[in-house]
Amino acid sequence: MTATEPRARARIAEPGEGISLDELALAARNHGMPLEALRYDVTPPGLHYVLTHYDIPAVDMASWRLSLGGAVERPLSLSLEDLQRRPAVTTRVLLECAGNGRARLEPRPVSQPWLLEAVGSAEWTGTPLAGVLREAGVGPDAVDVSFTGADHGVERGVEQDYTRGLSLAEAMRPDVLLVWAMNGAALPPQHGAPLRLLVPGWYGMAHVKWLDRIEVLTEPYTGFQNATAYRLKVDPHEDGEPVTRIRPRALLAPPGWPDFMTRERFVRAGPVPLSGRAWSGRAPITRVEVSTDGGASWDDAVLAPTDPAHPYAWRAWTYDWTATPGTHQLTVRATDEGGSQPVAQEWNRQGMANNLVQRVPVTVLG
Amino acid sequence: MTATEPRARARIAEPGEGISLDELALAARNHGMPLEALRYDVTPPGLHYVLTHYDIPAVDMASWRLSLGGAVERPLSLSLEDLQRRPAVTTRVLLECAGNGRARLEPRPVSQPWLLEAVGSAEWTGTPLAGVLREAGVGPDAVDVSFTGADHGVERGVEQDYTRGLSLAEAMRPDVLLVWAMNGAALPPQHGAPLRLLVPGWYGMAHVKWLDRIEVLTEPYTGFQNATAYRLKVDPHEDGEPVTRIRPRALLAPPGWPDFMTRERFVRAGPVPLSGRAWSGRAPITRVEVSTDGGASWDDAVLAPTDPAHPYAWRAWTYDWTATPGTHQLTVRATDEGGSQPVAQEWNRQGMANNLVQRVPVTVLG
Repeated sequence: MTATEPRARARIAEPGEGISLDELALAARNHGMPLEALRYDVTPPGLHYVLTHYDIPAVDMASWRLSLGGAVERPLSLSLEDLQRRPAVTTRVLLECAGNGRARLEPRPVSQPWLLEAVGSAEWTGTPLAGVLREAGVGPDAVDVSFTGADHGVERGVEQDYTRGLSLAEAMRPDVLLVWAMNGAALPPQHGAPLRLLVPGWYGMAHVKWLDRIEVLTEPYTGFQNATAYRLKVDPHEDGEPVTRIRPRALLAPPGWPDFMTRERFVRAGPVPLSGRAWSGRAPITRVEVSTDGGASWDDAVLAPTDPAHPYAWRAWTYDWTATPGTHQLTVRATDEGGSQPVAQEWNRQGMANNLVQRVPVTVLG
Repeated sequence: MTATEPRARARIAEPGEGISLDELALAARNHGMPLEALRYDVTPPGLHYVLTHYDIPAVDMASWRLSLGGAVERPLSLSLEDLQRRPAVTTRVLLECAGNGRARLEPRPVSQPWLLEAVGSAEWTGTPLAGVLREAGVGPDAVDVSFTGADHGVERGVEQDYTRGLSLAEAMRPDVLLVWAMNGAALPPQHGAPLRLLVPGWYGMAHVKWLDRIEVLTEPYTGFQNATAYRLKVDPHEDGEPVTRIRPRALLAPPGWPDFMTRERFVRAGPVPLSGRAWSGRAPITRVEVSTDGGASWDDAVLAPTDPAHPYAWRAWTYDWTATPGTHQLTVRATDEGGSQPVAQEWNRQGMANNLVQRVPVTVLG
């Protein structure tokens, strides 16, 4: 065991251990989308989830440039205006944090303690990365591309600017964008102003914020965020599979009204329309099912039509429930062409890419 | 003891008890302002703190009206356009949640677990409430005014639409506004769209969101949020003083860079400019002091000029620190004409109006 190995491991909470002040500090800084905001096709600014690894950087726009170097014929240094003169695309994309659902896992991986709110839908405007890479002239031996943000910090002992690598093939996808606007306005600071990457279909860690350096690599990228942080490991000594595309999930907007402290839900007996969204970053959603008896029986929800122009948007669903007095557990599961959400926990030690079904206890008043 | 009394009390955490999943669910829904956002005079949308007692309501703008009734000569029913045709005022105001700092209290009151981020500064646009009240004709025996929002829920067993009462004298202050815009744009859903109350100088609970009913009362208002929730009580059987105006506080933007998980700060030795904001809702800020040795010694910070047009805005301050290698605890305290922030905890059982000084441990690298 080397001196740095213990810090390279994520900690797992002891059985029954409450949320720590460290975890709470992350929960208070970052924020989820309150689930009643599932009602909006496009999440209003300020309700979309935000995860910032370090601090939101103070970017000096007078000197800001995007640099593109490494294994290219013509390194580039581009101003925001240079980028905005290029062909622009606006696309509606669902984003989800790879750690969504982590805080309900047992045992609990100690990190940003998301329950189920680390999602949001936005309309992103930017220019295809592929065009910029082509202009620079990618070398014949290039394999990966790294993307570095202006946010700086320490993670498990490693001081770093946040950087993610992507295969050249993914980077050249025509829908991968360099984005400067969200919902028709300039990117807000917490969403990566002035520029971020958008990799539709992938969990949030790939969409590098405050992006200011791109490097084309002739060797596979092995930095911290790819090799250590975002991996599916059960044993701490395994390398684990990398976290990539978003697994299917459906969420229900909890019906009725809540208790302030417990968030327990109340509805009155009778017809209760249920609604929510479903998505997958790996394949089209084919089915959403609802259970009002905790998963003993399932019934198909009605799926809204897909919009072929926005394949990575979330999809609305509805279900008519006739609520009878007593307590009920609502649950919902999505199926895409690759399979369904699990109804039992699938655990990994960093709590990544977990898509266990949501469960919503509801008290129906007579 | 009546049957409902136990639910009327806020719970206090046991010594060493971690944050519960109920508290975490509130922290994940609501969100604080990451303290690096102290750098902005006006907090960008989405970074301003948000506390929602129940759910963000879905307001139907086609049928929405503000009703004003009770002890008035002419009850009013106003559309948003009616309100927007009235004289408009834009004012920059600091808002802070009355529960800010609660999660670090020992023992910890169990509620929304804020650390220190429940603040924000915005430019609010609306019309003076006093003019609308005068148009309605307030009866000679009026004493209080109640303000009710569209948000509905249960709190300690009491089902309610969120409602706060205010004395008629406060309600008639010329700077109390009915607000429809924030930072030059329509109010976002989470900040009370389409209309909220603004009571400059008061903690956040007074600024009723999703406001749709105003009632002029001839008896003092005794509803849940005034009589039970927002009180300063040490003994659960006392009535306690009501929570009203914001006590003085200074916050420091933590310098350097953080560790992802612990939020511990690192800087390099040498000159480190420190900066932050200070405010008070009860009297002008007269002094901000900084300590770099955990409070053993204090030195004056440089206060930015006040802006007489915005007496309830926060005030910038700066301090030049020469950091020497080792660990240091930074702390900062504000003084207004009524006194200074406490350096030792002042506890009450709901964790309200706590303005204990912030402490920021920093590791200085050689």
